[in-house]
Amino acid sequence: MTIISLLTDFGTQDGFIGVMKGVIWGIAPEAHIADLSHAVPAQDVVQGAYLLGQSYTYFPSGSVHVAVVDPGVGTRRLGIAAHIGSQYFVAPDNGLITIPWNAAAAKGEPIEIVALNRKEFWLPNVSHSFHGRDIFAPVAAYLARGVALSDLGEPLAEPVLLDLPQPEPFDGGWQAQVILIDSFGNLITNLTRAQVQERKIASIHMNAIRIAGVVTTFGAASPGELIAMFDSSDRLSLCVVNGNAARTSGAQVGARVTVFTM
Amino acid sequence: MTIISLLTDFGTQDGFIGVMKGVIWGIAPEAHIADLSHAVPAQDVVQGAYLLGQSYTYFPSGSVHVAVVDPGVGTRRLGIAAHIGSQYFVAPDNGLITIPWNAAAAKGEPIEIVALNRKEFWLPNVSHSFHGRDIFAPVAAYLARGVALSDLGEPLAEPVLLDLPQPEPFDGGWQAQVILIDSFGNLITNLTRAQVQERKIASIHMNAIRIAGVVTTFGAASPGELIAMFDSSDRLSLCVVNGNAARTSGAQVGARVTVFTM
Amino acid sequence: MTIISLLTDFGTQDGFIGVMKGVIWGIAPEAHIADLSHAVPAQDVVQGAYLLGQSYTYFPSGSVHVAVVDPGVGTRRLGIAAHIGSQYFVAPDNGLITIPWNAAAAKGEPIEIVALNRKEFWLPNVSHSFHGRDIFAPVAAYLARGVALSDLGEPLAEPVLLDLPQPEPFDGGWQAQVILIDSFGNLITNLTRAQVQERKIASIHMNAIRIAGVVTTFGAASPGELIAMFDSSDRLSLCVVNGNAARTSGAQVGARVTVFTM
Repeated sequence: MTIISLLTDFGTQDGFIGVMKGVIWGIAPEAHIADLSHAVPAQDVVQGAYLLGQSYTYFPSGSVHVAVVDPGVGTRRLGIAAHIGSQYFVAPDNGLITIPWNAAAAKGEPIEIVALNRKEFWLPNVSHSFHGRDIFAPVAAYLARGVALSDLGEPLAEPVLLDLPQPEPFDGGWQAQVILIDSFGNLITNLTRAQVQERKIASIHMNAIRIAGVVTTFGAASPGELIAMFDSSDRLSLCVVNGNAARTSGAQVGARVTVFTM
Repeated sequence: MTIISLLTDFGTQDGFIGVMKGVIWGIAPEAHIADLSHAVPAQDVVQGAYLLGQSYTYFPSGSVHVAVVDPGVGTRRLGIAAHIGSQYFVAPDNGLITIPWNAAAAKGEPIEIVALNRKEFWLPNVSHSFHGRDIFAPVAAYLARGVALSDLGEPLAEPVLLDLPQPEPFDGGWQAQVILIDSFGNLITNLTRAQVQERKIASIHMNAIRIAGVVTTFGAASPGELIAMFDSSDRLSLCVVNGNAARTSGAQVGARVTVFTM
Repeated sequence: MTIISLLTDFGTQDGFIGVMKGVIWGIAPEAHIADLSHAVPAQDVVQGAYLLGQSYTYFPSGSVHVAVVDPGVGTRRLGIAAHIGSQYFVAPDNGLITIPWNAAAAKGEPIEIVALNRKEFWLPNVSHSFHGRDIFAPVAAYLARGVALSDLGEPLAEPVLLDLPQPEPFDGGWQAQVILIDSFGNLITNLTRAQVQERKIASIHMNAIRIAGVVTTFGAASPGELIAMFDSSDRLSLCVVNGNAARTSGAQVGARVTVFTM
């Protein structure tokens, strides 16, 4: 019983996602399919990569993650299927798999990637604008059915990888930035608990905002208060307790966040 | 083949729901998972309780309902798992299960509740802000796999229950209120068909609005007309035929609705 | 393992869709359920018919498509179940099945339709406003379980069919119109590749907008450029590359699009 996850910027109003499920179940009738998100900002590969990167580790070994944020659909960009660590990925070759790739490379886990070119695993008619339906969904379904990755295309040594912004350390802190805003309005930065380690955070500055220290839980502050805490993916986040920090602060993705240690 | 339903205020854009499904299927690969709603207004436990209360009775016996509207996440509030009537519930202990609890208590059906404290049924790392993923999803999955409720925690005699507003009878009618607004804009009150019984409704007043009588179906009135009828959960509702009563009237949750009988 | 698809105008906030899944799985525990869309504009049967019409062909034979856009719920309109070509449909009798009906009739494929009247296949209590839950979901589940179509109702020879607008040919082109706007803001017309055949399109006019020719792919133009191309359902569409043509042009469903051939 293989799990397939779907991440796209298609929205859910047009039936595109349902059609991808119809295609998948026509090939792999036993697959379970989980929607990760279909609200990635249109054509925003970086946001798609972050969402995939914070999600895939929670799926069982052998899951297949289909990610389609695809501004290059209909151009010469490649489609890929990848076996990275214990998980599979099917996506356009535009960097969506950057975070799992980086994580596996750092741990020395096996990575195998093919450029999709075996049309017998695609729908018979491939449109110029909906490879999610015509290529990626059927390829994922064949993976779920047990087709070998190497049967789906030619080995690809150097997939496109994104140069995701990293926090810059300086003497006494880090220059970080907001990389994601979740639907609660929490401002999620690229500074992780692993990077901070044992150092203690004294204050966090963003524009005119100054937050003293980091709390462990929402419960440590009062409703309406602006706090900093490590989120459920261990990234430093700015939050309003029971409120919306993005709305309160007006901050957007890319906002600079300066973190001072004691 | 157990059914698990998910009700949250997480929205569907951030991948949180997909991650919960990945966690569930890692433990209970055969489970079917239905999204009830992920658009509960943020931290609105009362709206979550109403949505759960109008939904769970339509699921087969033995279904597991995970409800996570959790303003207290990261505080000392408990997590619970409950067997109420023929259904299971997993939620923070904040009153989300009030309606099934009340219904079962009124019928004398068995109720068994435990406070979750057996960490071997949780993810190894529990965050301070996403117990839906780290505690409630895996606990629900273990229930679906057949783990006994009593293995998941310590018996809890008095869970938190909400004091949901009841319509107040007066001589010649009821003082009711709007408790929910659905996505059609229908204004749903807390007055039920069971409470009205055989008495005939003469008129319904809300602010300057006056509706004469109750119709049985939308078909009994003309498009654009403001009517009152009992909705699909047998609650008195104010609706605009093929329109949006909330927009037309400007009414919000909590609006007072006075119902006069003949 | 039968597939059931769901298409409604219910939205996803109120739990209605989850409840339909609970009802289905109570009857057909093995069914896979795909959401096609729940964002059909309220009571817009025509948009629902288009969405269903562009989706059902991608599902495996024997799938059951439940479509509930139902302004007539609670009136005397019939409910139907249909076997059209290789697929099943369950819907109110208001024209939602027009596109599969037309396609099958054109190809001489078998069509069998019944008016639903066997209450033993419905929920015991049928509300006046939610036949999706009380009639259509259980009927679809019984179809998925193998109940014969003819057991569900009386034969119906002439279901309601919509008179969907067709492009009008003139000497040197077609008068077409926008029939759908997808969530990318692409303006989808009713002129299909099959209708255009080998003729070459010289220009496309909509209000003050003039587009020269048709491109094959988004990649053939620059970001921000307004182009015309055949979409993934082979309908002529007006699109802004990596942008939103509806917002740019202000056009709405029904906008007239004049297409000139060379």
